[in-house]
Amino acid sequence: MKSLRIAILGTGNVAWHLASTFENQGHVINHVYDRDINKAEKFALDYFNASTSDSLDLSEINAHLFIMALSDDSIEEVAQTLQLPSGSTLVHTSGTVPLNSLGYAQTHNIGVFYPLQTFSKGKSLDFTDIPICIEGESDETIELLRNLANSISHSVHLLNSNQRKVIHLSAVFACNFTNHMFTISKGILESNDLDFDILKPLIVETLNKSFDISPENAQTGPAKRGDMETLDSQFESLSNDPSVAEIYQLVSQNIIDFYQD
Amino acid sequence: MKSLRIAILGTGNVAWHLASTFENQGHVINHVYDRDINKAEKFALDYFNASTSDSLDLSEINAHLFIMALSDDSIEEVAQTLQLPSGSTLVHTSGTVPLNSLGYAQTHNIGVFYPLQTFSKGKSLDFTDIPICIEGESDETIELLRNLANSISHSVHLLNSNQRKVIHLSAVFACNFTNHMFTISKGILESNDLDFDILKPLIVETLNKSFDISPENAQTGPAKRGDMETLDSQFESLSNDPSVAEIYQLVSQNIIDFYQD
Repeated sequence: MKSLRIAILGTGNVAWHLASTFENQGHVINHVYDRDINKAEKFALDYFNASTSDSLDLSEINAHLFIMALSDDSIEEVAQTLQLPSGSTLVHTSGTVPLNSLGYAQTHNIGVFYPLQTFSKGKSLDFTDIPICIEGESDETIELLRNLANSISHSVHLLNSNQRKVIHLSAVFACNFTNHMFTISKGILESNDLDFDILKPLIVETLNKSFDISPENAQTGPAKRGDMETLDSQFESLSNDPSVAEIYQLVSQNIIDFYQD
Repeated sequence: MKSLRIAILGTGNVAWHLASTFENQGHVINHVYDRDINKAEKFALDYFNASTSDSLDLSEINAHLFIMALSDDSIEEVAQTLQLPSGSTLVHTSGTVPLNSLGYAQTHNIGVFYPLQTFSKGKSLDFTDIPICIEGESDETIELLRNLANSISHSVHLLNSNQRKVIHLSAVFACNFTNHMFTISKGILESNDLDFDILKPLIVETLNKSFDISPENAQTGPAKRGDMETLDSQFESLSNDPSVAEIYQLVSQNIIDFYQD
């Protein structure tokens, strides 16, 4: 595709990863906005062609695309005061904020460019396999975002705001909750002078198996086997932490019910 | 270490993986027991020196070590009727069965040789990183098991029966429950015509981050942020499946409480 001139609003992890990936693929970051001008200037050091600002009047910035990589709860407010050149396109990068939160912006070319990944500061990620979920109000916007997404990833998905919400909810279970299960597991081990490291090979192989044969076919453990003796004894052993015991009981029961159906 | 002559009781996944790994490291599988003689004979085809039986009188079998790779609930019963040559050592491979379940066996050399891993039929695993948890009634047995474990893995842990129980419980959270979270997540996606594959890069990166900086430092998501609006809206969207909604609420609350402390 042709090279795009891109303005980035925000200087956090998502902004950092997107901007460097875009430039690596031949696009040009030509402006960086942050309400803290020092952050904008520091960020812009990596981008030879980038001007900076802490003002939301960006009507003089000659960019094809303005990307809001801001926190979810500031997107709608910023969109309301933002001034853009006519004919430009505005997108946000959030998994949860609906497209119409950009409806107040002074442009009709609005969309979403949501990379479905967790980003850490300073740790480069290869975008090739990262799903990019796009949404646009017009066919032209969709086409622009699809081309941009294809230029950095081979996994591009046109999703509406409701589908994006569903993905976000499913990620809460598959990522946030699994990570908290690790935290609980680590706590149980450490209160018995055991190290979480001992579980890592098992966790990795369980994940491999789950991906290979699908999670519902990979389930093991006392609840799957209906081994009531082990379930009772493990539940008892959690009596010093009632809320963890309740999680144990509820998830085990859900597994039992799932495999009885 | 010197090469050991090993008899295997059972022909399931654990037996298959252990036997082939032991032979690869220079030990000799010289007998295979299964209550179904056909299974024992089929298993023994891979082992040139192995005789077979479906009888629990193994007093004539000239092995240093007898390994029971049997289902948890048959271990104690089999140990009660088993006949072994005097001076031989008997171990089981279970994470949950206490050492003293072997107490009825006709030998004083009893122990546990528990590989902390999930095994799939026919899929070879490199044992080098697999933690081997050993336990023994005597120092001689511990020494024998430690040498055997060191010959196949560099992660060998001397644990008592209670510690093994703790590891098993922590693995229920870190492996069984996380896998069920994937199953729930997949169900949510599929009921909205979305594919579980879209989440896989995020799941892998979340796991990498959790291992890199420890799970309690890697937590993200609405509960961690205390984002009540998203929590309420996601809980509402689960109203068609009350037990999953209850899991959502309980785990979210546990995350909120954990990070408030």
